[in-house]
Amino acid sequence: MKKLCPGGQTVQLPSRPRLLAWASVVGKKEGEGPLAATFDVVGSEDSFGEKSWEKAETAMQKLALSTALKKAALAPSALDWLLAGDLLNQCIGSAFAARDQDIPFLGLYGACSTMAESLSLAALLLDGGFGAHAAAMTSSHFCSAERQYRTPLEYGGQRTPTAQWTVTGSGCVILGQEGPGPAVTHVTVGKVVDKGIRDANNMGAAMAPAAADTILAHFRDTGRKPSDYDLVITGDLGQLGHELLGELLKREGLELPHLADCGTLIYDLQGQDVHCGGSGCGCSAAVLCGLLLGGLREGRWKRILFCGTGALLSPTSTQQGESIPSVCHGVVIEQERRD
Amino acid sequence: MKKLCPGGQTVQLPSRPRLLAWASVVGKKEGEGPLAATFDVVGSEDSFGEKSWEKAETAMQKLALSTALKKAALAPSALDWLLAGDLLNQCIGSAFAARDQDIPFLGLYGACSTMAESLSLAALLLDGGFGAHAAAMTSSHFCSAERQYRTPLEYGGQRTPTAQWTVTGSGCVILGQEGPGPAVTHVTVGKVVDKGIRDANNMGAAMAPAAADTILAHFRDTGRKPSDYDLVITGDLGQLGHELLGELLKREGLELPHLADCGTLIYDLQGQDVHCGGSGCGCSAAVLCGLLLGGLREGRWKRILFCGTGALLSPTSTQQGESIPSVCHGVVIEQERRD
Repeated sequence: MKKLCPGGQTVQLPSRPRLLAWASVVGKKEGEGPLAATFDVVGSEDSFGEKSWEKAETAMQKLALSTALKKAALAPSALDWLLAGDLLNQCIGSAFAARDQDIPFLGLYGACSTMAESLSLAALLLDGGFGAHAAAMTSSHFCSAERQYRTPLEYGGQRTPTAQWTVTGSGCVILGQEGPGPAVTHVTVGKVVDKGIRDANNMGAAMAPAAADTILAHFRDTGRKPSDYDLVITGDLGQLGHELLGELLKREGLELPHLADCGTLIYDLQGQDVHCGGSGCGCSAAVLCGLLLGGLREGRWKRILFCGTGALLSPTSTQQGESIPSVCHGVVIEQERRD
Repeated sequence: MKKLCPGGQTVQLPSRPRLLAWASVVGKKEGEGPLAATFDVVGSEDSFGEKSWEKAETAMQKLALSTALKKAALAPSALDWLLAGDLLNQCIGSAFAARDQDIPFLGLYGACSTMAESLSLAALLLDGGFGAHAAAMTSSHFCSAERQYRTPLEYGGQRTPTAQWTVTGSGCVILGQEGPGPAVTHVTVGKVVDKGIRDANNMGAAMAPAAADTILAHFRDTGRKPSDYDLVITGDLGQLGHELLGELLKREGLELPHLADCGTLIYDLQGQDVHCGGSGCGCSAAVLCGLLLGGLREGRWKRILFCGTGALLSPTSTQQGESIPSVCHGVVIEQERRD
């Protein structure tokens, strides 16, 4: 069976790797938002018992992994692969979470697209026959992200209207070659797109063209129609980026009746003072490992296109006057076979 | 065919993805070392015509990719996948190199193990049937690494005797499902190992246990003997780490007659003032994409085990008193079928 679709950017996974179980761990603010009931663990305080925000991220990942494994009734030793990454310099959130596991580890960096990237690669490895079980995981933390990317919290800097709020959260999915649960059927890995946006406080605008590029490639490659999906959901474009994406797709003749964004769903945009919405690897991870996969299992949706979006900038690249390269990876997840 | 070896950590790749072509790009100091004749491009100055060291890294990657594609007689559009990563915060060396390409991109972070990680994943994707061609790439730069990890060059800090010298270099391999050239036959993805070393100036000691763990797993999983390999070569353990690895393996009953390290080969350890040898993603990348693959093609070796080694620390984790988690990925590359 040919796995690469004619358009060349989408692969199909004939064995339909299953999402056996998943878990989300979030901070206090996320636990006060509209998706509170969908998370497995809501921290009573954002340090998760650790002495630094970076160590708190590792603690969240370990908790997400152990919770997901428990729900899948699997021991860590059952995992053939652990794929993880995060936003911290040198991805230490993931490396230190992997340290206490006895699982072959592949570190990833896809900025906020990392949940979709890890899920894609985990599914591809299982479909390729390279093992029976894999875990895909990521995290972000508001306090470590502010310190690293913007200003220390104590500085009390003003946020611009286009800014987003980094989600304190982690998500982990356990995949299996066989079993119950929603399945990954297609993956569209994105190209790096950069339309010249230089404002690091407007990442939605930087990422929207990458999301449009991948979504258009997906529909072109698969020959599917908008009505084939109950939901097309991006990672963390936020309010502005979400509106831009709708316009970009419309301009290319693609109108998606069910287009949404994890970043606009995870917070009450009016009531929680988050400006354009949520961002960070943990945003799409926590929404996937709660609202989305729960909704698929319960039959709320039958087939979704989950599009992780990442802005591949760094403080150094911004200081050097560079624009913001972005990427988006699309993953088709469906509960029931609808071929 | 069962792809996962009995021991559980090594996979075999029945389709034997081929290494069609490769290219190495290095800086001035590397071009003055013992492997000078094996590199494709030696920069006349380490800025590679750019205004910052970070941009120089991107320039090196782009040059490595275009040179390798030219040698493979392939257009960039022939590539189904580009897998790359580097040491810079948020892996901007790779993201900005990928920006000008029109190729689906997966960003990786494996510290100095990234050449082995990208090569492994590229080979796995092709063996899984997910495309015909892929590129695996990485880079490092002495000046950007010193600024980010240690002290600005202008500071003139003293180096400790166990320190290593970050290689200014990039390597890129073009893989194909079919064609001439050495083939990838097995991959042993490493677990994260941390034996408590806290000295960020002694990464060889931190990484040696991870290298031992992966090499032991590889021989256990495959049931092979040391004589099945003409060369087992680690990425960048340096002089001290290389000696430690030999001792660790010997303690477990594994004596490898042909054990070497890219970090000790790329410089003249006595004459080039590099203390324990080379390090950085570009170290094993440039040695692989020069000496090693060239040697395989010319028949100097028939089968090698290439073991990329990475120290998964960050300046922040060091400042927070953490020890150094490490990882090592092993890739079997052979020129001729010797089943």
